Amino acid sequence: MKPLDIAAINREAVQAIQKVQPELVGIGIAGEVVPRLRRNLVLHAGPPITWDRMCGPLRGAVMGALVYEGLARSIPEAERLAASGEIAFEPWHEHDGVGPMAGVATASMPVWIVEDRASGRRTFCTLNEGLGKVLRYGAYSEEVLTRLRWMRDVLGPVLQEALTRRPPINLKALIAQALQMGDEVHNRHRAATSLLFRELAPAILRTRAPTDDQVKVLEFLHANDHTFLNLSMPAAKLMLQAAEWREGCTLVTTMARNGTDFGIRVAGLPHRWFTGPAGQVKGLLFPGFIEADCNPDIGDSAITETVGLGGFSMAAAPAIVKFVGGTVADAMRYTQTMYEITVGESEAFQIPSLDFRGAPLGIDLLKVCETGILPQINTGIAHREAGVGQVGAGLVNPPRQCFEAALAAFVEIYCPE
Amino acid sequence: MKPLDIAAINREAVQAIQKVQPELVGIGIAGEVVPRLRRNLVLHAGPPITWDRMCGPLRGAVMGALVYEGLARSIPEAERLAASGEIAFEPWHEHDGVGPMAGVATASMPVWIVEDRASGRRTFCTLNEGLGKVLRYGAYSEEVLTRLRWMRDVLGPVLQEALTRRPPINLKALIAQALQMGDEVHNRHRAATSLLFRELAPAILRTRAPTDDQVKVLEFLHANDHTFLNLSMPAAKLMLQAAEWREGCTLVTTMARNGTDFGIRVAGLPHRWFTGPAGQVKGLLFPGFIEADCNPDIGDSAITETVGLGGFSMAAAPAIVKFVGGTVADAMRYTQTMYEITVGESEAFQIPSLDFRGAPLGIDLLKVCETGILPQINTGIAHREAGVGQVGAGLVNPPRQCFEAALAAFVEIYCPE
Repeated sequence: MKPLDIAAINREAVQAIQKVQPELVGIGIAGEVVPRLRRNLVLHAGPPITWDRMCGPLRGAVMGALVYEGLARSIPEAERLAASGEIAFEPWHEHDGVGPMAGVATASMPVWIVEDRASGRRTFCTLNEGLGKVLRYGAYSEEVLTRLRWMRDVLGPVLQEALTRRPPINLKALIAQALQMGDEVHNRHRAATSLLFRELAPAILRTRAPTDDQVKVLEFLHANDHTFLNLSMPAAKLMLQAAEWREGCTLVTTMARNGTDFGIRVAGLPHRWFTGPAGQVKGLLFPGFIEADCNPDIGDSAITETVGLGGFSMAAAPAIVKFVGGTVADAMRYTQTMYEITVGESEAFQIPSLDFRGAPLGIDLLKVCETGILPQINTGIAHREAGVGQVGAGLVNPPRQCFEAALAAFVEIYCPE
Repeated sequence: MKPLDIAAINREAVQAIQKVQPELVGIGIAGEVVPRLRRNLVLHAGPPITWDRMCGPLRGAVMGALVYEGLARSIPEAERLAASGEIAFEPWHEHDGVGPMAGVATASMPVWIVEDRASGRRTFCTLNEGLGKVLRYGAYSEEVLTRLRWMRDVLGPVLQEALTRRPPINLKALIAQALQMGDEVHNRHRAATSLLFRELAPAILRTRAPTDDQVKVLEFLHANDHTFLNLSMPAAKLMLQAAEWREGCTLVTTMARNGTDFGIRVAGLPHRWFTGPAGQVKGLLFPGFIEADCNPDIGDSAITETVGLGGFSMAAAPAIVKFVGGTVADAMRYTQTMYEITVGESEAFQIPSLDFRGAPLGIDLLKVCETGILPQINTGIAHREAGVGQVGAGLVNPPRQCFEAALAAFVEIYCPE
């Protein structure tokens, strides 16, 4: 057996990631465009999980989605159905997609379609609902479902038509710009959302939708600085897929949480999840909430960190500390530290305050295990009970055992004697 | 004579500046809303100047404006008219307004109206034409005049109606946000323009203008990241007017250049200009231009520095160095140094990379003279010949003699023996 040149393999993987050009090409109905998504399947964030182990907000989102899909007539009925075994649950990540927080998606939801023209690969994500009481934080009230229906009936179709009336939007260039504008592109998306809004608005005007609907769509996008989160995530996933599944490669290509387990996947260990308990997020809570209200870490949004954004690019976004806590010096330090566990630097994503140094890119399982430094993630915090919603935002790390288990598996496969 | 407590007077002046709430309330026709603007009067940037001493780009803009106004049928005729004595020239600053670069404004141009509701005071500025061959850089070709007519006939009226269909836009809050998003709000306005675009787009849709015009207006605003410059300037002027004219106050309330002279005005020396030769800007030139092509420093846009933005807030905008030259460390240093010549720190305008320290606010004539530190300005560079346009951007300081002359005048008035 030829010895593996892991460093060279990882370098090639980083180059492959850098070559991807994620473009926003359209909107589709999830059931029509997401691979293997069927009517009785609920996609969710993080590694695989069964109903009985799901946390409150994930259960809440599942129940809300079943009512939204017309598979149940009420939340209690949805709860019985979800527990009955008639509904399947699978990770978004195994369907070329990602979902923020609970990350629940079902067949009739509209999804962004992000494409790399050269490879033809596509990734998907639902549209962002806004902050507060929203499905992705486990809320399922009539207000939440009414908004989801409006997103399906008005927002989705208007954006779909708008995107046919203009060229694809280069998301990599847009993210690169946003990093020059104080976004770290995970929990701060004000610049990216603004730049997206500028790109979309003229095309929205050119649709045949009634002016009232056009205005409502613009106001909805304008009201929510997190609109772009649901594009940075599939863009990040599309880039990282270029490293999957590559023999002998130790780069982490997925970090994702379902609110109970934190799971990672590694390029050289195809399709396998390595999990540990999702951590408690430390951060700033909205008034009226206490730490005991907080659900453990949840969501696929750590895909942004996996590609060098979010917690890895906090030096680009000093203002983020007002949302997730800590000081500006902390934000600088998080980015600096992440260079110790990554094998490359992004060509496209540059940190202005570090003299335009490329963001730390390519988390190396070996470096994480050698240094003991865990990836730095910033994230929203969901209430631990179904039906409540967001309670704050903060900072968290993956559990060490994900990396230890992955390393053990890597050694077992690649170093058999 | 009671001794002056200059420090207390300056503190009060800074407080007065901080209290101003500049809001974008509408669009008007300059001749109808700008005080004492008559048909044969051309407003310009900087201190007063006669035709014979005007630099190339200011002459170019004047000639273009005379043709645009129908006062001359051709550029040669405009040149003769401008030199004839039949046209009056006065600084924008003496008409409650400001103009970027040549800063030329005439009666039929649309202007933004910025208002402080509490005091009822208003300031004005023309709408930004975009980059390259534009009147404010001294270009006057048919392309330039056609654009100005479209701005008068379509852009102005659409924005005017849009602004009646929504509440006033709080420019101070918007600028404060932009500083958290990598703008220094003089030569980098990408975030501020994006935020403005988000505010305006839904209102533009609600106008009765044809969809084609609405789309063109959105695309025009979208295509020009400097759109907001023509709002940050009158907002800055409105704030600084609160310090004028205040007995014994040594705060600089105006820094402005006409391309020949740099002039300052001081709160305790009502209406007087103290001038010196406009400096050569050091910076990055567009391909094909050399230093000998560059006109000396020009424009009223240094009003942004006077209120703590632009060169004073470069630490908020590391990405600006790609446009004006220098390093990120330089940008940090410029801001740090400006605290040595200012008496206050902005409450609204915060520098994220300095742990949200307020921007240096209130340039003190005495501190400038004591320390020898000159205000740091960043600025666009015009070609020195009429008709060409912008050739680059860079950094410049005012001439020392403005401050020396102002100090001498201050001593003469306030310390007679």
